Amino acid sequence: MSSTGFAYSNLVGKSVPPPAPRWAGNADFNFVGGHNDRSLIPVEGLIEATASVLRREGAELALYSLAQGPQGYRGLRQFVADKLGRWRGIQAGADDVLITSGSGQAIDLINQVLLEPGDTVILEEFTYGGYLTKLRRLGVDIVAAPLDEDGIRIDALGTILADLKGRGITPKYICAIPTIQNPTGSIMPLDRRHQLLALAREYGVPIFEDECYADLTWGAMDAPPALYALDPSRVIHIGSFSKTLAPALRLGYVVADWEFMSRMVAIKTANDSGTGALEQMVVAEYFSKHFEDHVNELSATLKDKLDTMVEAVEREFGTAVEPWLPKGGIFLWMKLPDEVDVRKLVQPALKAGIAFNPGPEWAVDGAAAKSRLRLCFGLTTKEEIRQGVAAFARVCHDETGIPVQSGNVRHVAAESGE
Amino acid sequence: MSSTGFAYSNLVGKSVPPPAPRWAGNADFNFVGGHNDRSLIPVEGLIEATASVLRREGAELALYSLAQGPQGYRGLRQFVADKLGRWRGIQAGADDVLITSGSGQAIDLINQVLLEPGDTVILEEFTYGGYLTKLRRLGVDIVAAPLDEDGIRIDALGTILADLKGRGITPKYICAIPTIQNPTGSIMPLDRRHQLLALAREYGVPIFEDECYADLTWGAMDAPPALYALDPSRVIHIGSFSKTLAPALRLGYVVADWEFMSRMVAIKTANDSGTGALEQMVVAEYFSKHFEDHVNELSATLKDKLDTMVEAVEREFGTAVEPWLPKGGIFLWMKLPDEVDVRKLVQPALKAGIAFNPGPEWAVDGAAAKSRLRLCFGLTTKEEIRQGVAAFARVCHDETGIPVQSGNVRHVAAESGE
Repeated sequence: MSSTGFAYSNLVGKSVPPPAPRWAGNADFNFVGGHNDRSLIPVEGLIEATASVLRREGAELALYSLAQGPQGYRGLRQFVADKLGRWRGIQAGADDVLITSGSGQAIDLINQVLLEPGDTVILEEFTYGGYLTKLRRLGVDIVAAPLDEDGIRIDALGTILADLKGRGITPKYICAIPTIQNPTGSIMPLDRRHQLLALAREYGVPIFEDECYADLTWGAMDAPPALYALDPSRVIHIGSFSKTLAPALRLGYVVADWEFMSRMVAIKTANDSGTGALEQMVVAEYFSKHFEDHVNELSATLKDKLDTMVEAVEREFGTAVEPWLPKGGIFLWMKLPDEVDVRKLVQPALKAGIAFNPGPEWAVDGAAAKSRLRLCFGLTTKEEIRQGVAAFARVCHDETGIPVQSGNVRHVAAESGE
Repeated sequence: MSSTGFAYSNLVGKSVPPPAPRWAGNADFNFVGGHNDRSLIPVEGLIEATASVLRREGAELALYSLAQGPQGYRGLRQFVADKLGRWRGIQAGADDVLITSGSGQAIDLINQVLLEPGDTVILEEFTYGGYLTKLRRLGVDIVAAPLDEDGIRIDALGTILADLKGRGITPKYICAIPTIQNPTGSIMPLDRRHQLLALAREYGVPIFEDECYADLTWGAMDAPPALYALDPSRVIHIGSFSKTLAPALRLGYVVADWEFMSRMVAIKTANDSGTGALEQMVVAEYFSKHFEDHVNELSATLKDKLDTMVEAVEREFGTAVEPWLPKGGIFLWMKLPDEVDVRKLVQPALKAGIAFNPGPEWAVDGAAAKSRLRLCFGLTTKEEIRQGVAAFARVCHDETGIPVQSGNVRHVAAESGE
């Protein structure tokens, strides 16, 4: 229904973001965000799980939060606790778990408990873009901890903490994605985990550990124990079902000491009336029986698609590209030559039907990451990956002259008619 | 896991609410909140709907928001538009509907678009307690519009608007629940709806219309058209599936002019990554076929339970009680004699296994509503209603001496051993 005269805009608050555009759909070659593989949504398994759990407990949907309180459906909390015990070395029970409406709500709750404008937090130099946008809206100072192929560099972090202490600043948290880092896909080795925790103890800083991708490793869940497992008193641990099952379901979780979690629960209770119970029930029922099989099949498929993407990127971009080879997950993080500013490729790529995440949105220092980008290989088929990466290389060449050669075709020669 | 030493409390922000207690479960006689009837959760219908919609569209769960954008699952938006057209006189299409994570999120989004600290809004004198707590946290001035058995009194509202105008204040909205008011259960007649809209036009104020209970009327959905139907340009209309289906599902909706909705969509996109898609898909699939039958059966059951509760209240409280007889919904709003302060009954009632909503939490002027209370008859069985109301009358008598007589038992006589 079109606007018929009343001017709401006179009444809108001063800090309200600009109007959203009408939804225009996704790009054909959709390498953006964290979508998953359509063929691996376990449709029949979810139908069976729904029938089973609703016949057993469906009448309880008549009560807010199934009358199980603000921490969420007990069956899902128990599954999370069991999963974390079996694969992540975490000793926790259902009462130590808070189910959230996606890991995004978990992040918001942690920030709402701890942060006030002017506070300082430490993030990995490349990290989930959602952290950056949320923290910037909160008016928080973000300090970048440098990364290498094993995660946060402990020497650099020590220098940062000492420097902050010298200025009288205790950061509110160190946010780390130690197991399948986003976007780099690295896994922090055990000895470095201990070093990180030692630094956190020395400086009195909690660690905010994000394991949203940790269940999707190429090596059958063989990462070292979670940071939370090594020091439950000072680590706030979050995870998600968006990547292991489906992002259109909005389910994440937190494991934390009750002193901290009780603050999160108080805020969640004031903000919502619970997380959707049907999704919690169905995921608990399905994953209580099928988690390991599903995640193993998914990881194998993702590894195959990663290999396809790495081949395509190397074929199309040649020596112009430096990919970080991930140890799991759904992303390929890569660097183009310094003279390429990927921000200038976003619109031309979209016109060619290609969506990607520019590095500056995934970096504390955006300008310094202007030649980096992230490609998701979760959604697209292998053929779409090959076609899409080739099309992206053409866009990149048309805009920047790079790459000079794709496969065995020299672009410059093709343009001159040879 | 118990606390093992790290003191998060040193790091917690200054305005964070106190820690939540561990969940203690619901009361035996649970007349609080907006729970529904367990026996009317359509378990087999939901299972069938899940199988049908997942076999058709389940693979799309692999994409955030099913790749259908931030307004929600198109099938549910279309159902909402059709329902509102058929029963509420509203002409809207799927693009005019925003699905939210419960009506609570809709309320938050409306407030986030319009309100800044120090703003003024007009609410009904008795209203949904969630409005009051949310608005007080936002630092907004709330002006109460008096109610009678037909909803907002237009003469009084006119005086309020003129008075505010005289002080240079334009309220950001008039929030009304014209169709099954919460807590009174009234339905505003058509002529008064026109008068309300005329006042809103005269003073340049939008109307925030809440129809969360409007589908549950005793008279087969025979209420006058929604306010939105009468003036779509200045009414923001919200509804919910919590009462028509199940509150543990978190699904609400908004219909509003795109100028306004585009602001809500922008904020929702910044705050979440969509509303849970499985619940949207299942509700759309189930209600597209079964809405009328389900709501008719539910309303008949609720009317029967209301009659049981009114009988019980009159039997147990006699002339001490003045109930407002609702025209639909799940609540009985009533007043005890002025000397009873229901706030002092909350804890003794809980000890006796009875939970109720004290009037002050449902009133702009809490102290003035100290003798009022709200009982939900949605959850409890008829036998529990009879037992619970009798138990509540005993608690009330023990604490206040009122009621003097329950049924044909004079409490004072019983106590003196006669």
